[in-house]
Amino acid sequence: MSKQQKQLRLGAFLPGAGQHVAAWRHPQAQSNGALNFEHYKQIAQTAERGKFDAFFLADGLALQHRPGAEGRTAFGGDFEPVTLFSALSAVTERIGFIATASTTYEDPYILARKFASLDHISGGRAGWNVVTTGSSEAAGNFGLEAHPIHAERYIRAHEFIDVAKGLWDSWEDDAFVRDKETAFYYDPKKIHQLNHKGRFFSVRGPLNIARPPQGYPVIVQAGSSEDGKELAGRTAEVIFTAQQTLEDAQAFYADVKGRLAKYGRTPDQLKVMPGVFPVVGITEAEAKAKYQELQDLIHPQVGLALLQGLIGTDLSAYPLDGPLPDLPETNDNKSRQALLIDIARKHNFTIRELYQWIAGARGHWTIIGTPVQIADQLESWFVNDAADGFNIMPPYLPGGLDDFVDLVIPELQRRGLFRTEYEGTTLRENLGLSRPVNQYQKVLAAIK
Amino acid sequence: MSKQQKQLRLGAFLPGAGQHVAAWRHPQAQSNGALNFEHYKQIAQTAERGKFDAFFLADGLALQHRPGAEGRTAFGGDFEPVTLFSALSAVTERIGFIATASTTYEDPYILARKFASLDHISGGRAGWNVVTTGSSEAAGNFGLEAHPIHAERYIRAHEFIDVAKGLWDSWEDDAFVRDKETAFYYDPKKIHQLNHKGRFFSVRGPLNIARPPQGYPVIVQAGSSEDGKELAGRTAEVIFTAQQTLEDAQAFYADVKGRLAKYGRTPDQLKVMPGVFPVVGITEAEAKAKYQELQDLIHPQVGLALLQGLIGTDLSAYPLDGPLPDLPETNDNKSRQALLIDIARKHNFTIRELYQWIAGARGHWTIIGTPVQIADQLESWFVNDAADGFNIMPPYLPGGLDDFVDLVIPELQRRGLFRTEYEGTTLRENLGLSRPVNQYQKVLAAIK
Repeated sequence: MSKQQKQLRLGAFLPGAGQHVAAWRHPQAQSNGALNFEHYKQIAQTAERGKFDAFFLADGLALQHRPGAEGRTAFGGDFEPVTLFSALSAVTERIGFIATASTTYEDPYILARKFASLDHISGGRAGWNVVTTGSSEAAGNFGLEAHPIHAERYIRAHEFIDVAKGLWDSWEDDAFVRDKETAFYYDPKKIHQLNHKGRFFSVRGPLNIARPPQGYPVIVQAGSSEDGKELAGRTAEVIFTAQQTLEDAQAFYADVKGRLAKYGRTPDQLKVMPGVFPVVGITEAEAKAKYQELQDLIHPQVGLALLQGLIGTDLSAYPLDGPLPDLPETNDNKSRQALLIDIARKHNFTIRELYQWIAGARGHWTIIGTPVQIADQLESWFVNDAADGFNIMPPYLPGGLDDFVDLVIPELQRRGLFRTEYEGTTLRENLGLSRPVNQYQKVLAAIK
Repeated sequence: MSKQQKQLRLGAFLPGAGQHVAAWRHPQAQSNGALNFEHYKQIAQTAERGKFDAFFLADGLALQHRPGAEGRTAFGGDFEPVTLFSALSAVTERIGFIATASTTYEDPYILARKFASLDHISGGRAGWNVVTTGSSEAAGNFGLEAHPIHAERYIRAHEFIDVAKGLWDSWEDDAFVRDKETAFYYDPKKIHQLNHKGRFFSVRGPLNIARPPQGYPVIVQAGSSEDGKELAGRTAEVIFTAQQTLEDAQAFYADVKGRLAKYGRTPDQLKVMPGVFPVVGITEAEAKAKYQELQDLIHPQVGLALLQGLIGTDLSAYPLDGPLPDLPETNDNKSRQALLIDIARKHNFTIRELYQWIAGARGHWTIIGTPVQIADQLESWFVNDAADGFNIMPPYLPGGLDDFVDLVIPELQRRGLFRTEYEGTTLRENLGLSRPVNQYQKVLAAIK
């Protein structure tokens, strides 16, 4: 029963028309959702009604070129996440906003500032999903000949996060006094220059915005490669991951939780949240029919192009109904490639079967069933040390989110697994994460 | 009468607690306004009630260090403008948002994308105030030894704007078809790679967001140096400038309008909007008393520090009650330095008198008087080819904006000089600026 009193954390991963590669073609999907602010406002407010911890969005810094499927993929028109979340924060009250941003192509001063600004605007509801950018196509948009190699990107990511935290600590929490009488706007002793000089960055500081309400935005990490897990162990507070089975998820959970101690961190400081693609029906048959309806909308060129993009290799020379060939290791998203090869081998999939398998969840866990069946599955992972919560990936929008909020959330609440009201006003408070102490105040405490 | 039918354009330049250097100390000012979202929401909605064309915000990329006045200047805690304006666009309907961003320190792909996103989120209400960054203190935050020299910054600015426009044109306006039947999300013939290779940037494109509703956000320019005026002549649609007298403003107006023809542009494609610092009273005596109340709140260290920052030179070795010494030419904001030296010489000001003179408007035009007196002055510049409109800079907030909206705007409306309702839904429509044609469609038209 004590396990039951622990609460699930839920993210809502809500891209445009939905998660399924053919979502935008679904009769009830908002086909222009990726660039429709009223649509986003509606789904943000629905997710908040469902008491989700956070609204999550992925991001890339290039148009995803899909050879063979030009014009058929629903990519390319989307809002930029931080601007979108700023606007959505003005029309919501409690839900958090986790925006993806790249340590490989962005600048730390500009990035630290915009996330601090989002955290202030939203009253402490910002999260930063740290990525090193999985797609090599970004390089050409930033004057680079080639995408930096995987290991280098992660070395830069560590330094980038350190710089960002240093900048967020520029001002102590009580630096601003704004005393009209004495004419002191801030206490000059409570502002600090960073003077960082590292391998990738040289940044003086201070940041020209006050410390974020949360201290730092919640740090999220979404790569499951060896480098990614180590970055998470050192810095992340939430890890988003793709896991297919309870056993794999348990192993992953134990692995990343086990990396915390050497950085002086405790297991509860990192929330493990696998992605879940739920297809909800009043009956199991209805759920299966819903799923099949989406699968039937997959254009073959789009399915193959999606697979090629995720696996980092051109597969056009191989027969669709033959096996997945041996592949060279990618420099893009390593953990995604490994996962898909593993799935193909395990199920003995042809290329066509593999793209059909990933067309919805892209390698995340797919659960097709009734609200009770879905809640059973989620509970099973939650109580068996495979997850602290889940990042929910509705098949199409807005309907797929409505289904989850109206049918599955009440079932989770009935079981005592999920909140019926927000515990706090900030994302940290709702996730049960402590507010980081300013490093300059830490130094001071050590001296005293 | 035909002159009367032409309409004034009005910007509202609304930083935190207000424009006066001591604004935050005013009893009715919102002293934490720079970081108070509810305050910004209130003043944005007030400006929209006043039918302002746009809300304008300046920006810098470093904390403005003010030697001798540490802790006493109201700088350092502010929101980042693009995130703030995204949020404000969600709680307003018609007013535009002109955000300042730097071509010297930002990246063109990231910048083009965030402004496109703001333009989409707001339904076509975004403007970009292009600056090369006037403060050398930014360099240290971006790994540079020194602030690039003025002329170099402007060469980069031209290339940056060209790249941004090329990226905004990546998708033709009707590229997205989202045809659920044929499974075409976009027309692949209507997407274009930029493949820019220039002196400062190498950018492949396409941009990963649809063309902004306005084609491009409205391009604004705020430097009045020779380089700045030439940049405006080639690219700007609004120019914000500091002018002290009708004659100087007329000369500036004729100068910049005269630069348009050689770029194939007509005079109405650039709106000249001098800054105005209005102190409004029911009587002239009340207005003067209001102004004096603010002047009395200037801490001497803050006054001197403000002057030093604007003029780009350390003046601490000179007596406050002596004349302004001869100064070396700055590499920061050249036109601001020239303006302040000119003011000092013309009025035979001491250093103290000069900082008192600029403490409110920083070199912009100060008008202290009744609504009728202020409207007379604005009308005089407007009908005498000195201005197409004004960027209104309230002394303190929210009160100074309330005064202008409740007392001066009705007077301008009574005279037929200013709208009583917005003409359009986009910033371009309200400013009377045409929507730029996509350069790829231009090429196509030329071939046909």
